[in-house]
Amino acid sequence: MQTLHVELGERSYPIYIGQGLLSRPEILSRHIAGRQVAIITNETVAPLYLEVLQQSLGGYSVACVVLPDGESFKNWETLQLIFDGLLTARHDRRTTVVALGGGVIGDMAGFAAACYQRGVDFIQVPTTLLSQVDSSVGGKTGINHPLGKNMVGAFYQPKAVLIDTASLNTLPVRELSAGLAEVIKYGLICDEPFLGWLEQNMSALRALEQGALTEAIERSCAAKARVVGADERESGIRATLNLGHTFGHAIETEQGYGVWLHGEAVAAGTVMALEMSHRLGWLSADERDRGVRLLHAAGLPIVPPQDMTPEQFLEHMAVDKKVLDGQLRLVLLKRLGEAVVTADYPREILDATLRTDYAALAHSINA
Amino acid sequence: MQTLHVELGERSYPIYIGQGLLSRPEILSRHIAGRQVAIITNETVAPLYLEVLQQSLGGYSVACVVLPDGESFKNWETLQLIFDGLLTARHDRRTTVVALGGGVIGDMAGFAAACYQRGVDFIQVPTTLLSQVDSSVGGKTGINHPLGKNMVGAFYQPKAVLIDTASLNTLPVRELSAGLAEVIKYGLICDEPFLGWLEQNMSALRALEQGALTEAIERSCAAKARVVGADERESGIRATLNLGHTFGHAIETEQGYGVWLHGEAVAAGTVMALEMSHRLGWLSADERDRGVRLLHAAGLPIVPPQDMTPEQFLEHMAVDKKVLDGQLRLVLLKRLGEAVVTADYPREILDATLRTDYAALAHSINA
Repeated sequence: MQTLHVELGERSYPIYIGQGLLSRPEILSRHIAGRQVAIITNETVAPLYLEVLQQSLGGYSVACVVLPDGESFKNWETLQLIFDGLLTARHDRRTTVVALGGGVIGDMAGFAAACYQRGVDFIQVPTTLLSQVDSSVGGKTGINHPLGKNMVGAFYQPKAVLIDTASLNTLPVRELSAGLAEVIKYGLICDEPFLGWLEQNMSALRALEQGALTEAIERSCAAKARVVGADERESGIRATLNLGHTFGHAIETEQGYGVWLHGEAVAAGTVMALEMSHRLGWLSADERDRGVRLLHAAGLPIVPPQDMTPEQFLEHMAVDKKVLDGQLRLVLLKRLGEAVVTADYPREILDATLRTDYAALAHSINA
Repeated sequence: MQTLHVELGERSYPIYIGQGLLSRPEILSRHIAGRQVAIITNETVAPLYLEVLQQSLGGYSVACVVLPDGESFKNWETLQLIFDGLLTARHDRRTTVVALGGGVIGDMAGFAAACYQRGVDFIQVPTTLLSQVDSSVGGKTGINHPLGKNMVGAFYQPKAVLIDTASLNTLPVRELSAGLAEVIKYGLICDEPFLGWLEQNMSALRALEQGALTEAIERSCAAKARVVGADERESGIRATLNLGHTFGHAIETEQGYGVWLHGEAVAAGTVMALEMSHRLGWLSADERDRGVRLLHAAGLPIVPPQDMTPEQFLEHMAVDKKVLDGQLRLVLLKRLGEAVVTADYPREILDATLRTDYAALAHSINA
């Protein structure tokens, strides 16, 4: 088992990474203060891992809330089911909420923990690659609003993150690829050598080789922990973690939550960020293509929905959380391995980026 | 103008108290960082004070959200109207939410500010006595759940509290009394000499004499600021501020939110806490009666709903936020001016307290 740490003063916490951690009760119990535990999971994950987790929590009074699966349920109505479950089971302020599932479960269970009785402990047990390398670390929690993704939420750190790499064995291929979008992101924004490693190991990752997966997860979590430790509330560098997300959120919102997986939308959005960075003269065509090729090799979409107009993109992007005083800030690449957040770009470059023929770009790199 | 301070390190903030502060733009603008301001108010307060506040905010881009009035609207559906308003007006992370109204508006606007884009600035402008002396100070925000009051919320401190004592001139008599319940509370839990002052000045307060009101507000806010500064997240002494609230919340929940005003339920709940403290041998009958008389003199109900059974009380009290590991902790008085939070009482004393004939008690003190 590997242990990383997110350093946030009195809110610091460990990330445990290893095979079979779900059935090691002594790890979880270190981080449970009271006698009550509420496991929040969904209909897909429950049949796979709920029983083994419940067994690991044998000494506690455990309540389970099983939610419907999918981004389209990341809303208030579903969140309310968590509060209903906690209140019906009479869970008090010392309860610990355990999120067992992917990013949607982690975001919702974390937000419920942040709000229930004005805040109770919680632990992340992410079971998808995307949540293991990204959303479970860093304390961003929340739900979607019909007018914008993750518009309602809280910064609320978990007491621990427990990553059982064995849970990836049951992950659908499409979701594995979605997780790889965030893994590739770390290479693009802050770790250029990692891009080379990923090019070498992409087949191993997609074949679920445990060694490669563990290394990719560790390297991703270490990058995330570093950035979050330096900027918990996203007043600066943390925003670079949103490479491809502003374009991607527009895709998700326009298509309807859950039609594109979050990681898929981020991948297409990252292609747009690569293109815009190229148009600004910061990336060469080769560097742009290298990024696009890696996303394609991960099995990800590299062409945004062709029926989406520039106006639709701009409309959704105008409510992005990175908008400040009317200025739309974008995460772009100064070079491979170095991201910036900037509102200082010519408007016509953004327009040209939105009008680019991405199908032709994909074709030109033989994707 | 008087200025008090809530000392919470980097989350410290001032409380301004004075007549006519709503029309002094320089006070508000000290605490507004961006260019956008969202005023959250309700249908009752808007016709009275919205225009003057908007004038004071002439230099900003101002959005207004006017909510229905009353505790029964302190729920998710109404909260959603705030998010809708903020998103429709494209307010970004640098917006400042201003709560203009009573406790319900302050709690909801504060919770919306805590959650909107994971947290934006907010300012409390309380217009009722209850919110001026209690709910606007200390950062407790939230909404009700059908199964319990204030069960969903956040600890989220304002950037400033601006108390315009002139706003009390339009306050309905019943709401003035409700506010006095919380004023009397400070005397009972931590300031015995204040009880004497209140006995002397109750008529002046109910006649809205500005000097008396200002002194009562200052003394109450100073007590609240002291307690909150010592225990922001209610791990100890802050819970004493909930004298009468556990019994009171049971009354509010059972009767349906808004039937009894919060302060009215707290008054009847405080009578029950006085009675229980007497039964435990901590207060003499005279001391208990002194507290009950003062509540009565403030125009408050001192008899709980006579159709509520002990079982109904216990059912609602079991989900109180002060329950820990199944133990119901109560705020009781060791003596007038000294409160304790304890789960260490004989169960039969609680049962006897719930079965007490409060109508007879009221009669015995000629109330």
